[in-house]
Amino acid sequence: SRSLNLAVIPGDGIGQEVVAEGLKVLSAVLPQDVKLETKEYDFGAQRYHATGETLTDADLDALKQHDAILLGAIGDPSVPSGVLERGFLLKLRFAFDHHVNLRPSKLLPGVATPLAGEPQIDFVVVREGTEGPYTGNGGTIRKGTEHEVATEVSVNTAFGVERVVRDAFARAQARPRKKLALIHKNNVLTFAGHLWTNIFNKVAAEFPDVTTEYMHVDAATIYLVTQPERFDVIVTDNLFGDIITDLAAAVSGGIGVAASGNINPSGEFPSMFEPVHGSAPDIAGQGKADPTATVLSVALLLRHLGYDAEAARIDEAVSTDLAERTGKPARSTTEIGDALAVRVAG
Amino acid sequence: SRSLNLAVIPGDGIGQEVVAEGLKVLSAVLPQDVKLETKEYDFGAQRYHATGETLTDADLDALKQHDAILLGAIGDPSVPSGVLERGFLLKLRFAFDHHVNLRPSKLLPGVATPLAGEPQIDFVVVREGTEGPYTGNGGTIRKGTEHEVATEVSVNTAFGVERVVRDAFARAQARPRKKLALIHKNNVLTFAGHLWTNIFNKVAAEFPDVTTEYMHVDAATIYLVTQPERFDVIVTDNLFGDIITDLAAAVSGGIGVAASGNINPSGEFPSMFEPVHGSAPDIAGQGKADPTATVLSVALLLRHLGYDAEAARIDEAVSTDLAERTGKPARSTTEIGDALAVRVAG
Ligand SMILES: CC(C)[C@H](C(=O)O)[C@@H](O)C(=O)O
Ligand SMILES: CC(C)[C@H](C(=O)O)[C@@H](O)C(=O)O
Repeated sequence: SRSLNLAVIPGDGIGQEVVAEGLKVLSAVLPQDVKLETKEYDFGAQRYHATGETLTDADLDALKQHDAILLGAIGDPSVPSGVLERGFLLKLRFAFDHHVNLRPSKLLPGVATPLAGEPQIDFVVVREGTEGPYTGNGGTIRKGTEHEVATEVSVNTAFGVERVVRDAFARAQARPRKKLALIHKNNVLTFAGHLWTNIFNKVAAEFPDVTTEYMHVDAATIYLVTQPERFDVIVTDNLFGDIITDLAAAVSGGIGVAASGNINPSGEFPSMFEPVHGSAPDIAGQGKADPTATVLSVALLLRHLGYDAEAARIDEAVSTDLAERTGKPARSTTEIGDALAVRVAG
Repeated sequence: SRSLNLAVIPGDGIGQEVVAEGLKVLSAVLPQDVKLETKEYDFGAQRYHATGETLTDADLDALKQHDAILLGAIGDPSVPSGVLERGFLLKLRFAFDHHVNLRPSKLLPGVATPLAGEPQIDFVVVREGTEGPYTGNGGTIRKGTEHEVATEVSVNTAFGVERVVRDAFARAQARPRKKLALIHKNNVLTFAGHLWTNIFNKVAAEFPDVTTEYMHVDAATIYLVTQPERFDVIVTDNLFGDIITDLAAAVSGGIGVAASGNINPSGEFPSMFEPVHGSAPDIAGQGKADPTATVLSVALLLRHLGYDAEAARIDEAVSTDLAERTGKPARSTTEIGDALAVRVAG
């Protein structure tokens, strides 16, 4: 019999609530013969305040034993900006070499968008996850004085760029439209920009059936609101990916339904799946959070582990659930989770 | 009698066409006693191909003699990406210390927006123009090999951040709503982020009547499409400013109406005014380009030089012109320029 050994990190704020529903749907969808084992970890603001720890070497060793990781949200206003982000979220992405940060954007029928008309949105962003301006390179001199200088160094390697570009080409090739856009700012960031562009063009030669285009990140924000149907697969740098995936989430139904996977394609380390939204402390503990983004992250997790049929059942259940929301009173976090669990089991 | 000694850089593509209309409106609006002198410069792709030059020291000396600079657009697909951007546009911004990059976003009545509903949009972005990832710091090793490493260094100084933050606070204080948002990514780019945040908070103490907020750049893209009315003045880094002002232009009527000023507030060097759009080679020479963004840039230029009443007349003429477009056939570049010239003279 098969098993799925999952690390669960509820985290802060609404993280607790949405993860509970994610697990509910996961249990409901998994085939009977799959033994689901979960272990919960207490990372986040509380543990940081209690111990000063964010993510230790021992924690990483423990997490390594799992098949995958499901995370709710990490972050709280009581912790200085950057401490949990750099000390936990980014540390984990770097330690487990999550270089493919996968963020699908699909505007499902019946879902509200801030865009006028009826835009067709169905694309996926492949965001590089271990390089660029996220490496923590840089520093500060003369801190706090009028002569302070602070630098941030974006580090880009042929190795790091090529593997994520290849991943994106393969994803584009597997989709009906077979289109891939590279987003960068190669007219200003010429060192990194040329590296990205040259590798993109080199790899493109091996995927002659994939249609490619290049777009500056500033222009891309325009297209995301005026012609989102233009996009199929996007590959981009860590920081540009951060920015455009929030915009992409906003136009395709909001961060309440935006899922993401921090993927280590080789399987050397477990991959991590999380909603794009944060811990939303303002609505935490009130049963108001929409667990849909977490449930869709569970679908990404299942697909990553080869449970394609189960992932598809979740996607379908979410589609139906969203389509039937219009005009109905708002439901609580658990009500939505219950409804989805019933649908995927059905 | 007064004089206005203007450097005119039509540049590439539609730059030629839109600048002609900008000058037409400028001549029409200027008081009779102001002697307008213009000198045209041939920067851009043609000169680059003919001479290999983008902007020489002698060019800079010549440009320095003017009260201000009006630019159409620079850039052509025949020139490798980055050559004219770094060699002309950015070189000029850095040489003339254009540290306040001013980009107003106002959705005027009757103007189409990709956003649903009737959003109220009226804010101005103060983008830092001489630091951040735009300095050209960085480099490449092992170029073209599988071991290539390319870096980009974002350089941020207390001096550079404080002057632009102060400028933004003063602008916020002068507006009815008196709100200022700092946009950065201080949870990831902690070195630069802390410098920006600390200086922002320090200067805020001197402007107690200005309401402030901080927002991560990724979250800002969400608010720009879901709650654009939230913004009054925004201050941000060079690269974040580049990205969000294109998005801001898109939601507030498109880059056809987005103006910008590259301002040296001390007046040590002439400031430069240009539409946010590029040279649009696909429609160049066809009389299809909308000169409105250039005409609005002329208004920014006039306001910078103290011609407030004339700037207001242009803004008003543009408002009326845009409001009356609905349902009418499209006009040519010169027809729009003619109409605006008549209105401002009226
Ligand atoms: C919280 C932060 C470190 C993170 C990022 O910048 O990657 C978040 O914005 C995201 O997109 O997952
Ligand atoms: C053309 C390019 C150098 C420029 C920039 O990145 O600043 C443009 O996008 C802008 O916003 O003025």
